[in-house]
Amino acid sequence: MKIIIIGATGTIGRAVVDLLAPDHDIVKVGFRGGDLQVDIASKDSIRKLFEDVGDFDSVVSAAGLAKFGSLDSLGDEDYLLGLANKLMGQVNLVRIGRKYINDNGSFTLTSGVLSQNPMPGSSSISMVNAGIEGFVRAAALETQRGIRVNAVSPIWVKETLEVLGMGSSEGMPAELVALAYKESLEGQRNGEVLDVRHFA
Amino acid sequence: MKIIIIGATGTIGRAVVDLLAPDHDIVKVGFRGGDLQVDIASKDSIRKLFEDVGDFDSVVSAAGLAKFGSLDSLGDEDYLLGLANKLMGQVNLVRIGRKYINDNGSFTLTSGVLSQNPMPGSSSISMVNAGIEGFVRAAALETQRGIRVNAVSPIWVKETLEVLGMGSSEGMPAELVALAYKESLEGQRNGEVLDVRHFA
Repeated sequence: MKIIIIGATGTIGRAVVDLLAPDHDIVKVGFRGGDLQVDIASKDSIRKLFEDVGDFDSVVSAAGLAKFGSLDSLGDEDYLLGLANKLMGQVNLVRIGRKYINDNGSFTLTSGVLSQNPMPGSSSISMVNAGIEGFVRAAALETQRGIRVNAVSPIWVKETLEVLGMGSSEGMPAELVALAYKESLEGQRNGEVLDVRHFA
Repeated sequence: MKIIIIGATGTIGRAVVDLLAPDHDIVKVGFRGGDLQVDIASKDSIRKLFEDVGDFDSVVSAAGLAKFGSLDSLGDEDYLLGLANKLMGQVNLVRIGRKYINDNGSFTLTSGVLSQNPMPGSSSISMVNAGIEGFVRAAALETQRGIRVNAVSPIWVKETLEVLGMGSSEGMPAELVALAYKESLEGQRNGEVLDVRHFA
């Protein structure tokens, strides 16, 4: 398969690239780095990406910004960031990409554990992640030509916790997180939210 | 309790008013009708509502616009309507209202069955409803002064199906839907999504 991996320079994206590269043709896409660049908050940028890539079978998104912060500290612009970037950015990958993707292709978006298991400070991220999951369940009912849509819900990634200087014993190594993306890509699931803990 | 019911002139709102009026002081709020008016898509309008009401104990929202339509027919403005109105409108009731509400008060928002049980055409509504549920779970961890936040998830309402000319045998009468709102208001739940089928 020819697979576009958006967020390919991030912690999860790199692990997905490493896992899939031996068996597939990978197009690595970053915001600044990668083979090609995209700003998922811009529909024009998304459209240009798909035009530039040409023929492809699958899209993996491990990209999207949203703001962590207390109810008291989050401003309107913080909620809007998550809605415009992590939520509608990924939704627009499906809305636009379904016109370009090959028959029987797939889209795999990224939500996150805070959707279902929130913590203080996650009101915007939990909202955005849950929204992604709601969209995926519904959009999967309408994609024609055998196209599938799923979301992967990662827990905290071990390497990310280490960078943040937080205890990493609870984190999952990115190479194990990547297994859920592989299942979404290579399996037959559609409209599902894959909890990475079930595939590691 | 003094309870602000937003969407009080709608099918569900009217049933909630009828159920709660014997035991509580109700402020009926509509977009056009009711004792007071609010446009939940406007933070200024929300702020004015709470200033005008003064002291209150609870807010029920059975309001919010989002667009039903196929992936092919929904435009950017349709997704934005749901995000700005049903999702952020209700989120902003909590963000703003928590500064005005009495100790041990509660917010009860409305999501909907399409969050978890989508149908073709529900991609925007499913996204919005799931986002409301994600927000409620997270925000409930941070509301101080004993304030609670829940969402009620209605299934199709019998009266609504009749108005739409659709088969109403599967619908739930609004007076039964209202029971979940009563449980959210009078019980001790916090951060929960109340499926109306469990309370009817």
